[in-house]
Amino acid sequence: MEPVLPFELKLEGIRPGGLTKALHRQLRAAIIARRLPDRFALPSTRRLADILGVGRNTVIAAYDLLVSEGHALARPGARMVVTGPADAAQRKPLPEGGAQPSRQTDPRIAKVWRQPAERLVHSVPIPARCFRTGVPEDRHFDHDAWRRLTARALRDAARSPFNYGPPAGLPALREAIAGHVAFVRAVVCGPEDLIVTSGAQQAFDLLARLLVTPGRTRVVVEDPGFPATRAAFAAAGALLAPVPVDEQGLRIDCLPNDAKVICVTPSHQSPTGVVMSAARRAELLQRARTLGAVVIEDDYDGEFLFDAHPQDALQTLDCDERVFYVGTFSKSLFPDLRKGFVVAPPWAREALIDVKRSTDSHGDRLTQAALAAFIAEGHLARHIRRMRPIYAQRRQALERGLERHLAQWLQVLPGNAGLHLSARVLKGSSAAAIFQAARDHLPGAVPLSAYAVNERTQGLCIGYGCMEVDPIARAVRAMGRALAGQPGLPP
Amino acid sequence: MEPVLPFELKLEGIRPGGLTKALHRQLRAAIIARRLPDRFALPSTRRLADILGVGRNTVIAAYDLLVSEGHALARPGARMVVTGPADAAQRKPLPEGGAQPSRQTDPRIAKVWRQPAERLVHSVPIPARCFRTGVPEDRHFDHDAWRRLTARALRDAARSPFNYGPPAGLPALREAIAGHVAFVRAVVCGPEDLIVTSGAQQAFDLLARLLVTPGRTRVVVEDPGFPATRAAFAAAGALLAPVPVDEQGLRIDCLPNDAKVICVTPSHQSPTGVVMSAARRAELLQRARTLGAVVIEDDYDGEFLFDAHPQDALQTLDCDERVFYVGTFSKSLFPDLRKGFVVAPPWAREALIDVKRSTDSHGDRLTQAALAAFIAEGHLARHIRRMRPIYAQRRQALERGLERHLAQWLQVLPGNAGLHLSARVLKGSSAAAIFQAARDHLPGAVPLSAYAVNERTQGLCIGYGCMEVDPIARAVRAMGRALAGQPGLPP
Repeated sequence: MEPVLPFELKLEGIRPGGLTKALHRQLRAAIIARRLPDRFALPSTRRLADILGVGRNTVIAAYDLLVSEGHALARPGARMVVTGPADAAQRKPLPEGGAQPSRQTDPRIAKVWRQPAERLVHSVPIPARCFRTGVPEDRHFDHDAWRRLTARALRDAARSPFNYGPPAGLPALREAIAGHVAFVRAVVCGPEDLIVTSGAQQAFDLLARLLVTPGRTRVVVEDPGFPATRAAFAAAGALLAPVPVDEQGLRIDCLPNDAKVICVTPSHQSPTGVVMSAARRAELLQRARTLGAVVIEDDYDGEFLFDAHPQDALQTLDCDERVFYVGTFSKSLFPDLRKGFVVAPPWAREALIDVKRSTDSHGDRLTQAALAAFIAEGHLARHIRRMRPIYAQRRQALERGLERHLAQWLQVLPGNAGLHLSARVLKGSSAAAIFQAARDHLPGAVPLSAYAVNERTQGLCIGYGCMEVDPIARAVRAMGRALAGQPGLPP
Repeated sequence: MEPVLPFELKLEGIRPGGLTKALHRQLRAAIIARRLPDRFALPSTRRLADILGVGRNTVIAAYDLLVSEGHALARPGARMVVTGPADAAQRKPLPEGGAQPSRQTDPRIAKVWRQPAERLVHSVPIPARCFRTGVPEDRHFDHDAWRRLTARALRDAARSPFNYGPPAGLPALREAIAGHVAFVRAVVCGPEDLIVTSGAQQAFDLLARLLVTPGRTRVVVEDPGFPATRAAFAAAGALLAPVPVDEQGLRIDCLPNDAKVICVTPSHQSPTGVVMSAARRAELLQRARTLGAVVIEDDYDGEFLFDAHPQDALQTLDCDERVFYVGTFSKSLFPDLRKGFVVAPPWAREALIDVKRSTDSHGDRLTQAALAAFIAEGHLARHIRRMRPIYAQRRQALERGLERHLAQWLQVLPGNAGLHLSARVLKGSSAAAIFQAARDHLPGAVPLSAYAVNERTQGLCIGYGCMEVDPIARAVRAMGRALAGQPGLPP
């Protein structure tokens, strides 16, 4: 008998309950791999059921799944046909990050991942050009220079044999970053002091694994603070100690006595936007010394400080190898470049490289080489110089708009830096009504509570990185009108 | 008084013992950042010591360090001058992965990283074109297609706003990989079943974190086996159980009763090169079911199986969602692309994406997009088709050479796949003399013991991925002559 399909289906050993799924998966794989070509007429359900020795309902259910996914097309009175990759564009797009119902309860999964994980603020894709935090502007980026340098890196790569790379990062990139942070932030380091990471998130993850003994190490995080930092330390088994933030930054008087790691965002607190005062910085380093603790300085938005005399980085002030400095190019360049770095004190450097090596061996060569050239040729410094006044103007537009149109409901928190600001809901205002109006008029803005653990301050966190001045002004004005028109809201 | 330097040195609060280092670091950072231009004449040691209020020896020692690094130049009878980045090429190159003496003893470092870490075989850079394992050939790669598709991905990127990406990987890449593995290895999966990783190493790391409860989970690894896999599981706190390998693959009769995770390289065992038999595959899956264990199938060299009818992947044979399939493009394309993937059973998928998100958010867009197009346009399949006979010929040349010239000392282990083979030292031969001859004539080849935990088989692991047929034949012949000329070696 001629085979009805150009490949063999394997159903031996499958439990009866799993037959539909097994059949569906194998057919789908064959369609994706084009072993079943476009317009191929599938055998009738009766015929296939007979051949395979399974119930007809099993085949019908498997075919239905193919149809629901757009891999096959039912035709009245004729056999079902395969819709090949040519029709893929019409298929439902692949959901971002998994659409299946949650099944994170399997006992084989380590416990820390079985609770619903603390989601990053950015766990779902961010709509382009909205008021989400942390998304920089693309319209002033020198795409030509980036393309040219990437092309050059490609040509260089084609001239050398294939090989593995150094875990700490390409020497040329480490050299370029060391020069960059020394220049932009007076961070004192040489290339051998830093390792290249896949964004700031990997820096937190590597540091968590380096410094945390599961179930033993107390780690201070800001409250409210960046959920992704918390997630990395929680996953490493840290005992998290959320510590509140005031208008000078992290409250040193609230640090627990057994703190061994202190995570801070002194340049532009994430999410309140507060800049840590000089006094608070000195106090923090002094207290860390007393506690024998290390400090992880996430220099969040450190390139976009709009004050004439920005505060020194903690790393610059550090006198006894206590500070790890974490930087990223996600905001100064773009997020899906996935490049960041850690400046580590000498006692930790070699072990940190071991962690990186064990975690993902090393970074990819192409973007490392392109970024090294981009920095070395001065494009990064130029881009930052270009963007600083642009972001400052956007911040000003947002701040003024909020003061002019929303002052009855929201008070802007201090802090003159970065790509976002936060505003506190004033007493007597309805936070629910304000958040609803923000959803309508400032899409992407999030309640401060999205960042909080215990902290109960009601507020709104608004990004302005990729929004131009006019749309910002219009949106805030519209939100003010919407709120003013609502009964029951003061005044 | 006019300042002697165009920036401020900060030595307040530095302990007397740390003054030289602090001074050196700040000067070096200024030179790297070009705040001290090329040929800038440094103040005399006496003058700077006076100004800073430190001993002159402190300044002399800091200057000496700058000179030793090539950042400054001493001139007889004149002030020392800065040698700027223009002279960087003459400076000592940055050591790969840290040159400082090991200081991994600090009690602040988590214990697992304080022991000298188990080094990957590739922890030091591999010399180009030698007999190291795992390095593929670059001379037949279609660099033009790769450049063209990367350029297209760059153009596409320039047209869309900046954004963060999906943690599981670009949908287009997941779709392309699903089609690829279905086609090349009959691995049954759709794009939603897999997540993109930064090489196979990140896959091991994510799976270790997903599946291991520190201090509790027993994880089986092959002995001898790939040290990097062991390192990832050890770092996650696994209880490692090394299990020996015979000519059919992992010895199922040696599996401990509390094994919960079983890591295997069935396609081409790393390092012995043995291919797991069909019977052993069935036995493994059956035993895993009895134990309630999951299997991690590292399909090492799975694209380069030279037998006419290669064994099915464990993932293909799996009937009850027990197998994680790990693939990489490090050998089928090139290592510093840093792209791999995991095909995960549905119950684990969402948690695995959470681990990836917490670890490094997501992969970079450029190489993901370029790779997706490279696969979708058929270049990967073509490259594998092109390379398969080339690698098979090189394997044959090495095997024949070993049999002709070294049969008295070494016996080739079975296994017809991949980019390396292993050979056992025959009884009565001096392993030390053989390894010495290999160092001279097969640079990059390593003793099997580099991969072993308890296993004591003496042997040699020889890569042929980036060595052409003639140099292979010459090297083996020369090694045979060298050994034959030695007194005290049989025959």
